[in-house]
Amino acid sequence: MASPIDDFYAVIPAGGVGSRLWPLSRADAPKFLHDLTGSGHSLLRDTWDRLEPLTGPDRIAVVTGRAHRAAVEDQLPGIADHNVILESEPRDSAAAIGLAAAILHRREPYVIIGSFAADHVIRGTRVFEFAVRDAVEVAREGYICTVGIAPSEPAVGFGYIKRGPELIVDGARDASLVERFVEKPDLDTAKQYLADRDYLWNAGMFISRADVLLAEIAANNPELHAGLVELAEAWDDRDRRGPAVDRIWPTLPKIAIDYVVAEPAADKGRLAVVPGHFDWDDVGDFASLAKLNSGGRKNDLAILGENARILSDAASGIVVSHTKRVISLIGVKDIVVVDTADALLVTTSEHAQRVKGVVDALKLTGRGDVL
Amino acid sequence: MASPIDDFYAVIPAGGVGSRLWPLSRADAPKFLHDLTGSGHSLLRDTWDRLEPLTGPDRIAVVTGRAHRAAVEDQLPGIADHNVILESEPRDSAAAIGLAAAILHRREPYVIIGSFAADHVIRGTRVFEFAVRDAVEVAREGYICTVGIAPSEPAVGFGYIKRGPELIVDGARDASLVERFVEKPDLDTAKQYLADRDYLWNAGMFISRADVLLAEIAANNPELHAGLVELAEAWDDRDRRGPAVDRIWPTLPKIAIDYVVAEPAADKGRLAVVPGHFDWDDVGDFASLAKLNSGGRKNDLAILGENARILSDAASGIVVSHTKRVISLIGVKDIVVVDTADALLVTTSEHAQRVKGVVDALKLTGRGDVL
Repeated sequence: MASPIDDFYAVIPAGGVGSRLWPLSRADAPKFLHDLTGSGHSLLRDTWDRLEPLTGPDRIAVVTGRAHRAAVEDQLPGIADHNVILESEPRDSAAAIGLAAAILHRREPYVIIGSFAADHVIRGTRVFEFAVRDAVEVAREGYICTVGIAPSEPAVGFGYIKRGPELIVDGARDASLVERFVEKPDLDTAKQYLADRDYLWNAGMFISRADVLLAEIAANNPELHAGLVELAEAWDDRDRRGPAVDRIWPTLPKIAIDYVVAEPAADKGRLAVVPGHFDWDDVGDFASLAKLNSGGRKNDLAILGENARILSDAASGIVVSHTKRVISLIGVKDIVVVDTADALLVTTSEHAQRVKGVVDALKLTGRGDVL
Repeated sequence: MASPIDDFYAVIPAGGVGSRLWPLSRADAPKFLHDLTGSGHSLLRDTWDRLEPLTGPDRIAVVTGRAHRAAVEDQLPGIADHNVILESEPRDSAAAIGLAAAILHRREPYVIIGSFAADHVIRGTRVFEFAVRDAVEVAREGYICTVGIAPSEPAVGFGYIKRGPELIVDGARDASLVERFVEKPDLDTAKQYLADRDYLWNAGMFISRADVLLAEIAANNPELHAGLVELAEAWDDRDRRGPAVDRIWPTLPKIAIDYVVAEPAADKGRLAVVPGHFDWDDVGDFASLAKLNSGGRKNDLAILGENARILSDAASGIVVSHTKRVISLIGVKDIVVVDTADALLVTTSEHAQRVKGVVDALKLTGRGDVL
C-alpha cells in the first residue's frame, strides 16, 4: 500500500436525503446512512474507508446537518471532533464544500482538498486511489481537477464532461483540460459519447488547493466567499463558532458547487480532469439500486435487508426489506418493493424516477410523518 | 316481503381457509370472516342476512370449526346455541352438511334443508330468494335441487351444470333435471356455454329434504352415513355429544358433497336445478376480488381496508390494506398488493392462482407462523 498524501485532506459533504429512494431514505435516515450494496456498511462508511488510504484517519472532514451528528459519529468512530463540520440547515454544496475549504485553509494554508459525495458507490478502490493521486498532482499545479468516470454504458441519467487538450503534469498519467460540461443526454447521444471516449461521467469529485477553490468562489460569488471567510475565522474558537453559524450560515446563497466553481473554472481553462477507470454509480433511484445489486442479471430478484424473509416465484427486480415480515412476490417483473415499518412502495424500475413525485405528494397531503 | 318458509332450514358450512387469498385469509381468520366487498360486514354475516328472510332467525345452522366458535358468534349475535354445530377438525363438505342434515332430521323429520357456502358473494338478494323458493318447491317433490347461476361471462374458473329435460313442479318456474356436471372449461368452450344458455355455474347450493339427502349419502357412502347417524343420535344430549364427536368425527371419510350426493344423484335423474339470475362469485382468488371491487373498470385501483392510506400514480388492480402504513403504488398495472401486519403479498391478477403455491411453500419451509 502507498502511504497517505501529506498535504491532502478529504471532505465528505453528507447532506442530501435521496428522495428518489423513499421510503428507504428519510429526512432522519438519509441515503448516505444506508447500506445499499449489502456490504454491511453504510455508503458513508464505505466512502471513508475508500479515502483513508489517501489521507490517513485524521484528515477526513465530514460536513453534515446537526441532526445527523450522532449517526455520523456512530458510522465513523475514528473521526476527530474537529473534522465534524455541522450545518444548522442545508445550504447546498457550494456552501458546504466552501466552508470546509475555508476552515482547512485557515488551519493549513497550502492544503489540497478533495470533495467526495457521501452516497455514491465505487468498486475498484485501488484504481480510484490512482485517479485521486493523479488529480492531486494536477491540483498542485493550481488547477481545480475533477475525476471523470470512464463510461461503461450509454447512460442517460448522468451529466458528462467533455475532455479538451491534454495537460502535461508530472506524476499524472492522463490529465486534460475540461472543454465543457454536458447535460444528461438522450440515448442516441449517449451512445455517441460512449464510442467517442472523450466524454466522461461527472461524478462531482473536485480536487484542488483550498486557496484556489476559495479564489474561484470569490471571483464568482463574493457574497458567499465573504460569509465563508467570516465563518472560518470564528470556527476554531469554541465561544464564537455557534453564534457565527447561527448568524451567517442561514444567509449564505444556496447554490451548487458546479455553478460557483466547476463551470466558471472550465470556461477559464482552469478546470482539469483525470479519467477514473473504476465502477461508479450515484444510486440515484431504485432502478439504479436494482441494477447495482443484481450483478447485471436481468431476471434476478435482488434482496437488500438483514432480516429479509422473501419468497419469490418468477419475480425479478429488487426488494428492500426493513421489517421482519414475510414478503411474497409472484410473477412480477422488474418490480421494486420497499417495505419499511410505516410505509410501503411498490413500483417498477421503469417508473423509479417518479418516486420523487410521491414524496412531493405526501408533503402536500399532510402525510409528512413518513418522509 | 314474503314470509319465511315454515319447513325450511338453512345450513351454512363455514370451513375453508381460502388459501388463494393468503395473507388476507389465515387459519385463524378464514375467508368467511372477512369483509371482501367493502359492505362493512363479513361474508358470513352477508350470507346470514341473505338467508334470514327465507328461514327466520332461528332456522339457520352454521357448521364450523371449534376454533371459530367465538368469531362466528361475534358475527352472528342472533344465532341460537343449538344452531352452532362444531367440528373438532375439518372433514370436508359431505361430513359437514351431512351432520347438519342428520341432526336436523332427528329434530324435525320432514325438514327441507338448503346448504349455502359462507364465503360467496351474491348481489341481487330478491332474485336469490325467488330461486331458493323455487328450489324448495322442487325439493318438496323428493329431488335434490341446486341453484345454477346463469352465466354473465365466459368464465373459466367455475364448474358448470348442464341442464337436461324440464321438470314441471307446482310453484317452480324454470326447473330442469341436471344432465351432468362439467369441469372448468377452456375459454372457447366457456364461450359456447355462454351462448348455449343450458349451462349454468355450479355454486354448490343444494336444497333437499333431509331424509332424501341422507338416503343419498347412505346409498353412496354407507360408512359416512352410519357415522353421521350415530353422531346425530348423541348430539342433543349434552353429556354424550362431546365424547361422540371426539370418537366418531375424526374417523369420517373426508370427501366433498359433490361426489357423495350431487354427481350420483344426477346420474340417477334425482338432481334438479333452477337457474339463478343474480350476480354470484366465489371470490376464489385475488383476480376475482379485484374484479369484484373495481366495478368492472379495468384501469381502476380497488382498495379494501378501513384504515387504508394509499397513494397511487398510474396504478390499477387491488390493494388490501390491513395496516396503517402508507402504501404508494407507481405505474403498476393489474397489481395485487396485500399488506398485513406480518406478511406482504405482491402479485398480479394474472398470477393470482399461484398464491396457493406460496402457502404450500411457506408450510414446507417452516414459516407456518404467517399462515
